[in-house]
Amino acid sequence: MSETRILASYVTDTRLEDIPQDVRHEARRAIVNFMGCAVGGSAHPAVDIAIRTLGPFSGPPTATVLGRSERLDPLHASLMNGISSHVYDYDDTTPKNYSHPTSPVASALFSYASANRVSGRDFMLAFILGFEAESRVANAVYPAHYDAGWHITGTSGVFGAATAVGRLLGLSVQQMVWAIGLAATQAAGLREMFGSMAKSFHPGRSAQNGYVAALLAKEGFTAGEHGIEGPRGFAAVQAAAYDLSKITARLGVDFDLRANTYKPFPCGIVNHPTIDGCIQLHDEHRLAPDAVRAVRLRVAPLVMDLCNQQNITKGLQGKFSVYHGAAVGLVRGRAGMKDYTDEAVNDPHVKRVREHATAVGDPSVTEDQARIEVELADGRVLTKFVEQSLGNLGRPLSDRQLDDKFRDQGVLALPDEDLESLIKLCWRIDDLDDVNEVVAASVPRATKAGAPGLVTPASRRA
Amino acid sequence: MSETRILASYVTDTRLEDIPQDVRHEARRAIVNFMGCAVGGSAHPAVDIAIRTLGPFSGPPTATVLGRSERLDPLHASLMNGISSHVYDYDDTTPKNYSHPTSPVASALFSYASANRVSGRDFMLAFILGFEAESRVANAVYPAHYDAGWHITGTSGVFGAATAVGRLLGLSVQQMVWAIGLAATQAAGLREMFGSMAKSFHPGRSAQNGYVAALLAKEGFTAGEHGIEGPRGFAAVQAAAYDLSKITARLGVDFDLRANTYKPFPCGIVNHPTIDGCIQLHDEHRLAPDAVRAVRLRVAPLVMDLCNQQNITKGLQGKFSVYHGAAVGLVRGRAGMKDYTDEAVNDPHVKRVREHATAVGDPSVTEDQARIEVELADGRVLTKFVEQSLGNLGRPLSDRQLDDKFRDQGVLALPDEDLESLIKLCWRIDDLDDVNEVVAASVPRATKAGAPGLVTPASRRA
Repeated sequence: MSETRILASYVTDTRLEDIPQDVRHEARRAIVNFMGCAVGGSAHPAVDIAIRTLGPFSGPPTATVLGRSERLDPLHASLMNGISSHVYDYDDTTPKNYSHPTSPVASALFSYASANRVSGRDFMLAFILGFEAESRVANAVYPAHYDAGWHITGTSGVFGAATAVGRLLGLSVQQMVWAIGLAATQAAGLREMFGSMAKSFHPGRSAQNGYVAALLAKEGFTAGEHGIEGPRGFAAVQAAAYDLSKITARLGVDFDLRANTYKPFPCGIVNHPTIDGCIQLHDEHRLAPDAVRAVRLRVAPLVMDLCNQQNITKGLQGKFSVYHGAAVGLVRGRAGMKDYTDEAVNDPHVKRVREHATAVGDPSVTEDQARIEVELADGRVLTKFVEQSLGNLGRPLSDRQLDDKFRDQGVLALPDEDLESLIKLCWRIDDLDDVNEVVAASVPRATKAGAPGLVTPASRRA
Repeated sequence: MSETRILASYVTDTRLEDIPQDVRHEARRAIVNFMGCAVGGSAHPAVDIAIRTLGPFSGPPTATVLGRSERLDPLHASLMNGISSHVYDYDDTTPKNYSHPTSPVASALFSYASANRVSGRDFMLAFILGFEAESRVANAVYPAHYDAGWHITGTSGVFGAATAVGRLLGLSVQQMVWAIGLAATQAAGLREMFGSMAKSFHPGRSAQNGYVAALLAKEGFTAGEHGIEGPRGFAAVQAAAYDLSKITARLGVDFDLRANTYKPFPCGIVNHPTIDGCIQLHDEHRLAPDAVRAVRLRVAPLVMDLCNQQNITKGLQGKFSVYHGAAVGLVRGRAGMKDYTDEAVNDPHVKRVREHATAVGDPSVTEDQARIEVELADGRVLTKFVEQSLGNLGRPLSDRQLDDKFRDQGVLALPDEDLESLIKLCWRIDDLDDVNEVVAASVPRATKAGAPGLVTPASRRA
């Protein structure tokens, strides 16, 4: 059997009972992290523009956009969820293929589950299978595919959305083969878009396109049978080198959800070891905002390539400044969403420490590491060596740290009480009779009732 | 200036007065051929399935699908127009890059012009510029891009649709740069889909995606500035070798519409020289249906690779049988849509000649040529050497032959009188105050009035 058909059969036939408990828990963690990102990003201008522009083309508004008052057809809602959950670059990452895997799959699934009644168990199974399909396709073409310039989140994501939605639609194996083909032939997204809104468009469009692929396949819209492995299929066309065995090896035994990681800080990941170490120093020594006289960093050379900005005035620049990361860690003892605003970058305490920091690229320091030396106003010199940065596979965020991350983003959109309810709902998603309960809880209360043009949740299947 | 920006400026700033008259006439020819294909393909099952599946997700139905009673939002209508106009593989081809260039551009433009008032002059200008942009992008990456397995019609088509719709939307140069970026990052379509419905999905999706790119760019949704030429842009990522100078060289002087060709027969193009010669023999010798005893063909070796099927029973097989092409040419004196049905393939006269035909691949015969020898029942032997097949650049279809081709397809959907009106409207498209007149004329009369759920043309801007 071809890789496409093996994958199609696996996604079609697997039951939730076949999924180990630890993988199910990793799925919950991925959902919690995703929802925090989607809600946190839901007010970003990219989402505003996309809804304003494409809303007038929406079909019957049977789906809620996560974190927003607007309802759209589920295809457009998938797009918006994908943009919001990725737009701050804060969603999950699988280091083995550098994709951000949850956004394309969950964006489509929450949209589907908003417009159609889906139980938590069915949702979880579809999510786990879509994630696995997408990540295995990515593994097969990584690194040649990514190195060539493809944004692997978009290109592999469409396979995840197609198979996950396809599973909820109850596709046959043959239909799933077509859905994978229709996904393959829509796999797109260029790294040239990094730094623009179009980057976040990628997981959104892959969610939407995968959803379309599954719908069409169910109705008998045919596609090539060898979308992945054919001589002119996804792997051969979009990767100079690939290994198809990574799609099928130990399928149903190994799960890439176990290889998923979560960013603890909303900024360039190469800054994370430095921030992590600076927060530790802050906490261990209860540093006052004016305690630091100078900072000396030894970091991986890549940090100097990507994040060597010191004279900055904008929050967005802070995300790519290792000096700013060190400064907020030492001065504020944290590096959350509020620490990457224009205000934070211009905070006098933060600014002073940032301007008294130096950094050197050191080939003996890995990208997971940082060597930090801090000179205090009282003359003491503190040092810290971070060997494994927080959030790495070797030092994953705890469930409670994921909650804190969720809160840090969620306060942008929701009052505390509603935020805590939403977090709790996400953790027990597989117990819900109707996943729309989570979707509805993501919408800010003020806009829930009485906002003009809103369709009430009760009318969704009307 | 970068290639992306040069192209964006050209598409933004050019006036219809800058376009030579012969190019404008070639544009009319492309539109006539496109409309015949769209109307002829409008009842294909691929279109039925796509409308049935995605219609429920359509926004306000302000656009007419060409040749159909259904109205959809213009994005979905673009998709449907792209499927119908390509599904019989009968649309135009630019041999210099093997793309089918009109479908993505015109599918989006007719949809836009159905939902918004567009004059014929504005329509023609947008079409010519979109065609040129798309074809130049294709030239830059051809042949490496096509050889790698990309369906260049889909990948280049999205640039055409984005720039053409962007022109009608009045994008600024900066917005056009973003539209091109958003097109680049959606460029998709694999040749692995050939032989399935997904092939016709490619021009449809590129029309729809290009339209979306233009809409978003107009509202300030940003994209990378170097979508085409950037180190991780379309050319570098999607072609092993490319020549960006083909995008900008003699821009505004040379026009690829002059290099466009039209298939005279709805079948594999390698069969065309044989069919052409056989029709000539039929006409020159007024052959009766039972006149032929045997046929001996010498053809390019590629014909034997692709079209060496003799024992066939289905119309679709006939499209890839050089023997069937010879038989209908000799027996019926034509090779139109009606000659590639199951009925035609099983016609006893056609079947007998097909079964008495032999073919040999001959490296001295080019793919534009055929050597034909026909033995008649009365003992005479006729020969014909076709040096340049009808429809090639060296022997283009005349305007009247394009009309005949239109009629051959259009009778599948429209009564004769309506067909003649539609053909006339297409030829004088640049004189129309409102291009929707053409769109409305493509809809079969029986379904125009009173069909349930239809929105009348008058309500389109309501």
